This record gives sequence, structure tokens and C-alpha cells, in this order.
Amino acid sequence: MLKHPERKYRPFASIELPDRRWPSRRLEAAPRWCSTDLRDGNQALIEPMGIERKRQFFDLLVRLGYKEIEIAFPAASQTDFSFVRGLIDGGSIPDDVWIQVITQAREDLIRDTLEALRGAPRAIVHLYNATAPVFRELVFSQGRQATIDMAVSGTRLIRELCEAQPETEWIYQYSPETFCFTEPEFALEICEAVCQAWQPSAERPLILNLPATVEVATPNVYADQIEWFMRHFSDLSHITISVHPHNDRGTGVACAEQAQLAGAARVEGCLFGNGERTGNVDLVTLALNLYTQGIDPGVDFSDMAEVVRVVESCNQLPVHPRHPYAGELVFTAFSGSHQDAIRKGFAARASDPEGCWQVPYLPLDPVDVGASYEAVIRVNSQSGKGGVAWLLEQDHGLRMPRRLQMEFSRLVQRDSDASGRELDSARIWQLFRETYGLHGTPLMVLGDYRITGAGGGDDPRVQCFEGLLCHAGHTLALQGHGGGVLESVVDSLRGPLDLRLDIVDYQEHSLGGDTESRAVAYVECRDEDGNHRFGVAVEGDSTGAAIRALLGAAARLLTIRQRT
Amino acid sequence: MLKHPERKYRPFASIELPDRRWPSRRLEAAPRWCSTDLRDGNQALIEPMGIERKRQFFDLLVRLGYKEIEIAFPAASQTDFSFVRGLIDGGSIPDDVWIQVITQAREDLIRDTLEALRGAPRAIVHLYNATAPVFRELVFSQGRQATIDMAVSGTRLIRELCEAQPETEWIYQYSPETFCFTEPEFALEICEAVCQAWQPSAERPLILNLPATVEVATPNVYADQIEWFMRHFSDLSHITISVHPHNDRGTGVACAEQAQLAGAARVEGCLFGNGERTGNVDLVTLALNLYTQGIDPGVDFSDMAEVVRVVESCNQLPVHPRHPYAGELVFTAFSGSHQDAIRKGFAARASDPEGCWQVPYLPLDPVDVGASYEAVIRVNSQSGKGGVAWLLEQDHGLRMPRRLQMEFSRLVQRDSDASGRELDSARIWQLFRETYGLHGTPLMVLGDYRITGAGGGDDPRVQCFEGLLCHAGHTLALQGHGGGVLESVVDSLRGPLDLRLDIVDYQEHSLGGDTESRAVAYVECRDEDGNHRFGVAVEGDSTGAAIRALLGAAARLLTIRQRT
Repeated sequence: MLKHPERKYRPFASIELPDRRWPSRRLEAAPRWCSTDLRDGNQALIEPMGIERKRQFFDLLVRLGYKEIEIAFPAASQTDFSFVRGLIDGGSIPDDVWIQVITQAREDLIRDTLEALRGAPRAIVHLYNATAPVFRELVFSQGRQATIDMAVSGTRLIRELCEAQPETEWIYQYSPETFCFTEPEFALEICEAVCQAWQPSAERPLILNLPATVEVATPNVYADQIEWFMRHFSDLSHITISVHPHNDRGTGVACAEQAQLAGAARVEGCLFGNGERTGNVDLVTLALNLYTQGIDPGVDFSDMAEVVRVVESCNQLPVHPRHPYAGELVFTAFSGSHQDAIRKGFAARASDPEGCWQVPYLPLDPVDVGASYEAVIRVNSQSGKGGVAWLLEQDHGLRMPRRLQMEFSRLVQRDSDASGRELDSARIWQLFRETYGLHGTPLMVLGDYRITGAGGGDDPRVQCFEGLLCHAGHTLALQGHGGGVLESVVDSLRGPLDLRLDIVDYQEHSLGGDTESRAVAYVECRDEDGNHRFGVAVEGDSTGAAIRALLGAAARLLTIRQRT
Repeated sequence: MLKHPERKYRPFASIELPDRRWPSRRLEAAPRWCSTDLRDGNQALIEPMGIERKRQFFDLLVRLGYKEIEIAFPAASQTDFSFVRGLIDGGSIPDDVWIQVITQAREDLIRDTLEALRGAPRAIVHLYNATAPVFRELVFSQGRQATIDMAVSGTRLIRELCEAQPETEWIYQYSPETFCFTEPEFALEICEAVCQAWQPSAERPLILNLPATVEVATPNVYADQIEWFMRHFSDLSHITISVHPHNDRGTGVACAEQAQLAGAARVEGCLFGNGERTGNVDLVTLALNLYTQGIDPGVDFSDMAEVVRVVESCNQLPVHPRHPYAGELVFTAFSGSHQDAIRKGFAARASDPEGCWQVPYLPLDPVDVGASYEAVIRVNSQSGKGGVAWLLEQDHGLRMPRRLQMEFSRLVQRDSDASGRELDSARIWQLFRETYGLHGTPLMVLGDYRITGAGGGDDPRVQCFEGLLCHAGHTLALQGHGGGVLESVVDSLRGPLDLRLDIVDYQEHSLGGDTESRAVAYVECRDEDGNHRFGVAVEGDSTGAAIRALLGAAARLLTIRQRT
């Protein structure tokens, strides 16, 4: 490797615009979207779509609400030409949708392009030519004037051919390629010349598309370029300024957003950022970035899984698990503190479901893109009590006391640390039932029992507990008294088991809302050595649940005594 | 779906800073990088790394040149604690590398954290607490003062414990979580209080890390927040302002870059943007964005394939094919006009290899990240002559005349359109050899031949050609005269084949540079009906190649006549 290989690169040119206005503005409305999935996206696929897959993608875009769709480079490929004809001849273009096709500025290509569009109800003809110095000098050996002449004569020919096909409603679009590294004055000059040749009017609208076909600078530089261009253009009546960012520096989304702040009113891009090399700007992220600001993006991603499915199938490229708003991991929190905060956010929302969305670590409500809450919290060795508690509440209705969450999450973490794997909800539930004796054999088996008001002494509330307990192969007869049922059970354990306990915490709630619902009881006990353990029991009868939970805690404390 | 579901979202708060300075600045040096792959990245994995994979990743980061590496949350997981101890006890931390560990502001966790670091040569202790209103109110039910007290008492305890372990060189880092949606005045207040408690000095440096743990606004808002904070902070001596962007809006890279313009001197992130949900900011893209501006990033990605391999294996997550600088498609051009421009760019560079890099559509020289040029141009139905010509030149040394490129690329496109598939170099070469008769039987088989200076008439240069030709099962004796060899061959075809041709173009070059190299000849002929065809031949003898190329063109023109 060279010592300083980076020295062969030239830094990007920026623009002098100290009184720029865009950084003080905010996004307040959606731009006009143009999907170029079927053109710029398609040409960058290892295996470009055939007519069938193109049609599937077109129909998806229409369903999502896109109104301007660049569908082909018809003069460059037979598949593209046939696809355009198929849509037009089949009457498959909805009344509010504009198809767009691209062409280079050569007479034969322009004529083929307009031929492809014959009979279309509405169409955008998109002409581009190379204006950047690296193209003019290196690729075409063409001076500035020849470059302008090419754009102007292409524009004039398109205007003439459009006028000869008056059955179609036309929009003309011109792109100086690549705007972002064309000298700003020259980009302005050639766009003014094209505008002169087209003569935009209400009936003859013009789109000036200012592409960053290769992203070469930070987004603020692109925004400066757009603002400079718009402030210097002679007359923007009937002209829409459009942007077409790519993502070579990983900042395509920021380019599109800051260019909108600078005045651009239209954005070209692809779903999930498909396109040449690093892709075109991602239309999904742009739309949902507006959505989560309370702005209607005008396109509908409420069934994101279906969008991902169709696009992955058409493009034969994956959507990354961390892709904003769409990846399978983007609503997932593994970290304990994140899970805890999310759980509390959902709880707060449950008591104010119409309020503003503010669930920590979830900028978008997963339900809004058709995702379930199940994916939100997943548990691995980095997770804490919050995530475990959330899963047990979501899937099994348990609302665990905080200290039980802490006790159990330590066991989960130990299990996860040992296996090095994610624990799914089923594994956590299995571990919970094993720990607290909720399947098969309980930790202590209580046989017949009886509770009676003892009526002895001055206090009529004293309870008497009598029952048979199977423990460690023996059947023990228990009898105890106390101010309540649980106290009488605690009292009954002193004699036969020599176990002296305090009840530290007791909570109980029903599982589900119907009359046949069962109760779950959580009882935390402390032994004479200061050890704490929870017991948990689920039963139709709430008193039975409480007694069995207490016996569960007792059994676990006995285990400690036997170990020491 | 609700009619306007977006209305449940609240737009982000921006900041009043009309005299902001960052948009006029440019990036001129690399920041201090901190990789948090082993902590923030790791906690977001479906299956977090065990000690072995963590070590593999740590060693990679060290090799790449990262000097600050957040390796664990040691008080939260046994794996993390053991990993920290293993690195320290094994003496595995290079002399110029700082390990960093994170902790919450609870006394027991802080004590465990400092215990984990005992004996480390250098360490950054990273404390965070929740400062944003949504956390204070929803999660912790904690007022502003209690939040400040928590940060201050955590800081004091860390300072005390650090002073008790003087064998370690310490840096302290504090993060108000989440800075980007904490009230700016409160973020300032709590950081000032932490600074007071730490008392930064040359021996006791402080990092104030201002995280966007959830990305909620456009990058210019984050930059405004950073600039506002730095302009309002009382005294930044011995303090480094660090940023920690995530990527929920797909603009993490832009956030990091614009925050640097605003004054941040340190960036925390992960390789390829791993991390909770949509990931942390991508350190690879940030580094190479600087590199392609001529700025030494201080980290080395000259063997990108190896970096991808290790990271994919450790994280068990893929790097997307369109990931900037690293994805398998990002140096690939499929489109014909792109391929054409790239080919010309490489040709220009060949004549000025020390000049500034300016190959169209390639912001980075693939060789700089260890990629080959082979992946640059791939051919599908969207490709034009440039790509085909490039592949045949790269792989077979052919420098085809422009009109031959056009002739042959039409055949390639027809083949690709028919199959709907990408054509690899082998298939293109097969098609070329079939078309021009370069394998097995030539289109016409020339037997023995003789060329003699005819010496007749006034012109001593007149050549005489005599030879035997096998064509369509017949052996023909040819004889002709002309001003040159090829003219005499053309003349010889009139009689027996009734074929009247003009030679439109003739080019020849050697294949390879050694003395045994062969010659390739390209001859374009036109028949009486105006049809054009190229013939191509490769032979040790240049005259033989030219004659056989001419006969190849003749054979192809005969085929046309036979079809009509």
C-alpha cells in the first residue's frame, strides 16, 4: 500500500453561499415522488427484470401511491420498448399516473423514444446529456457550446415530436449529467438554454432535474448547490426543480432532505435504495421520515412486509435487517435498559392511546407498517429484566413484581450467557416454569387442605390451616395458625420442616378477563439467613394459588439450606 | 388503516441558531474514532459474541488502526466482565490503544466496572444516564435535579475509584442520554455539573459524548445542537466533544459529518453500521468518505474483503451488496453509458497514472480497498458496447474498432435480452468466437496461398494473390490483383463467388508483448447492397490474419445474400 494513497483524490468543490437559507427551514410537506425503480434501479440489477417482473413492480408502485414512475429507456433495449408499449396498449396506466421514459440526446434515440410513447395518455419525456467537465473532456471531447447545442437541439426535437402527438399530455424533463460536479454557472447556462428551447407554460410544464448521479460531497454542499441554482435561475414559472441523489457516500437520504429544504419540490429514487452501485436514494426511508414528523407522505407503507416481499422478488436483492423502517431487526431491542424503557413507554401509551407517540427507542409505531409488537423485544445475554418481563406479559399475561423480574432475569442471563444464544419466548417460558415448578410436579405437592376461622382467643380473624404435604418422598401433616391464610401456612411449616419464613411480598392478579380465568400469585419469602426467593402459582382459585406460591418459595429456600 | 395515522407523531424540535457556522466549513482532518462494535454493536446481535469472537473482532479493530475501542458493559454481563479481564490479564492491549467500558450511574455497577478494569494500562470509563424528558418522566419518574445528582454522584465515585487505581491512565466519558432529544439547556446544565465534579485537566481528560441514540431529526438539526452546545459551554479546555449517531432516519453518516463541521472531534460508531435497530453510524463509510477527499482517515481498509469476512462472521449479519465502499455491487457498472465512460476514464488514467483520480462513476479506485477491476464492468441487457469492449480487452487483449464494438454489442444485447440474464466474460467470449469463426472451423477455410509482387504495368506495387478456398463444401481456386494484399484478395473473390466488396476499415494490433505474440486483424467490408460486416482473425503472421479477417467478413456477407 502507498504511504498516503488518499493523496490521489481531489476534495470536492464547494460553493460560496454564506447567506444560505435552507438550514433554518424545516420539511413541511411531501415532495412529488418519482420512482425510477424500473429504469435506474432495473439497469443496476445483476439480472434486469423481464416484462412480467417489471409489471409486478409497476403495479406495486401504483398501489403504494406513486404518481410518477420512470419505467424505461425504450430506445436502448427491446425489453424496455415492449414494456412501454404493453402498458399503453393494455390501457394499464391509471388516470392519475404519469409514466416517464429516459433518452439520450441523439436524434434516432429521441425518435424511437417518442414512438414508444405513441398513444400514452400522459408521459414525461426525460432527456439527459453529460455536462460535467470529466464527461465533456474525458468521454465526449466536447466543448461547452457543443454540449449546450446538443441539449437544445434534443429539446427542440422533443418539443416538435410532442406537438405532433397531441393526444398525449406531455411533461418535459431535462437533466444536466451530473449536476453535482458540473460547474454551477455552466449548469445554470445549459438549463436556461433548455428552458428557452422548451418555453415552459401551464400546458407545457418543465422539470429541471439536478442529479447527483455519483454522490461526491457532503449533503450540505448539495443543498447549497440547489439553493444557489434556484436563486440564480431567471424565471422558475412552470418549472419544477427535481433532485436525483445517489448514495456513494452513504448520505443520499440527507442529500434529498436538505435539497428539499433548499427548494427542490420533487425527488427521484428507488424503493429501499436500489440503483447503480450504492443505489439511488431510498424512497421508503424518505417517506417514513416525513411520516414520523406528522407529515402525510402521500404513499402508503402500511403493509411493509408485502412491499419487501415484492421488491426482493423483483430485484433479487435483499433488504438489509437494519434497513430503516423495513429491516427485520429495526424494531427490536435486545439491551436491558432499552427494553425496560420500551415496556414503560407501552404501559404509558396504554393509558393514553390517543396521545402523541412517544415510546422510547421506537421512533415509529411498528403497527403503522404492519409489524407486530412481538418483534420489539428479544432476549439475549445483553438483555435485562424489562425484556423478559415484557415477553412473559405479552405471551402469558404475567405482570411480575419488580423484584421477581430481577430474580428471574438473572437466571435468564445465566442461561443465555452459557449458551451464547438468543432466548426466544418459548425458551424463557420453559425456564420460568422449570424454576417455579409450573409444569409437571410442583416443588412441593399440597394434598387436601382445610382453612377454618379458628375463633380462638380475642381475635375472630385468626385462621387455622391444616393440610397434607408431600415433600422429598415424605408426607407431612401441616397445621398452623395466623392472622391470615398465608400466615397460618407459614406457621404450619415451622414444626415438620423446621422452616422459619417471613413473607416479604405478595401479589396476585387474574389471567385474562373471562369468568373462567385463573389467578396467578407471586409470593416472596425470606428465611432466617436472609435469603429471598419467589414462589409462583397459577390456579382457578385465588386462595389456592397464594398457598401454592408460598409453598413454592418455601421449597426453593429449603433447597438453599440443603446445599449449604 | 387510519385516515391520517401520521398525525400521532410530533415533529422534532429544532434550535434557533441563525448565525450557525458549520455549513460554511469543510472536513479537513479525521476525528478520533471510537469503535463500539464490541458493546453497542454486540448488544444488538441476535446472538452476541462470545469471548472468542469478541477477541477476533478486537484484534481486527487493532489491525485496522482503531485506538479507542469500547469493549464491554462489564457490570451487566459475565461474558463482558470476563472479556475485559482476559484482555488485561493477557497483556493483549497494544500500547497506543485505549479500552473503553460503559456503566450506568448506580454505585454497585460503577464499583464492579472499576473492578473489571483493575490493572489496565489505559482505560476510558463511560458513564451515562437518562436526561431526555421522555426518560425522566416516563421511565424513571425523576426530576431534573435528581437526574443531575445521579450524574454528579456517579462522576464523583468514578473519580474517587480512579484515583485509588493510579496504575491506570484514565479518561472519563459522560453521555447525557439521549442528547438529541434532551432540552439543550438541560443537556448543557448537566454536562457543566459533570465537568465541575470531574475537574478536567491535562492529566484528567474528559470526553463529553452527545449521543443521538435514536435519530429523530435531520442532520442539520443535530449539527445545530452540537454547535449551540459548544458555543454555550463555559470552558472546553481538556474536553473532547464526541458524537454517537444512530441511523433510524438513514442519515447517521450525514449526522456524524455535519456534527464534525459543527466542532465535534470524536465519533463513536460501528463497522458497517451494526448496532441497536438500524445500527450505529458506519465507521467504514465515514473513513472512506474522508479518504476520497484526500484526507488520511487514520484507519486502513486496503483489504476490505477480509474486513467484511471477519465482521460478517463475528456479527452473523450480512454486509449489503450496495453498502458504500464494501458491498459486492458498488464498483459495478451495468449501464452501457456508464461502462463507456468508465472505459474512457481508465484509458485516460493509463496515460497519466500519477494524476488525480477521476474515473467517471467510480468515486473510489477499487484497488485502494483491495478490489480488482474485474468487478467494475458487468454485462446485462442494459449494457452497451463499452462494457463488452472493456471485457474483451481486459480478458483477451482485443482493442476493437468502434464500429465493431457497435456491431458485436447488438448481438450481445440480443442474447442477453433473450435469456434475461447477466452475460459473464466467458459467455461473451464464446459468442464472439462463434460470430467471427474464431474456434473450430473458420467461416471460410483458406488453404495454401501465395502473394507475389505482380510487377505488371506501370505500378510496381501491384500484388498478386493466389490461393485455395474451401467454402460450402467446394474448393475454389482464387486469383486476383490489386494495389495491396487485401485489394488483391477482394479482387480474387469476384470470379468464383460473384462477390463484389469494398474494404471500409482495416485495423490490426499485436496480442500481448512478447516475441511470440500473435496478431489480431479486424476488417470491415461492404457489399453491393450496402451491408456491412466485420471479419476478425488471430494469427502468428499479420498478413495471414488480415487475409483471414477479410475472408471472415466475406463469408458473413455471403450469408446475408443466401438468406435474401
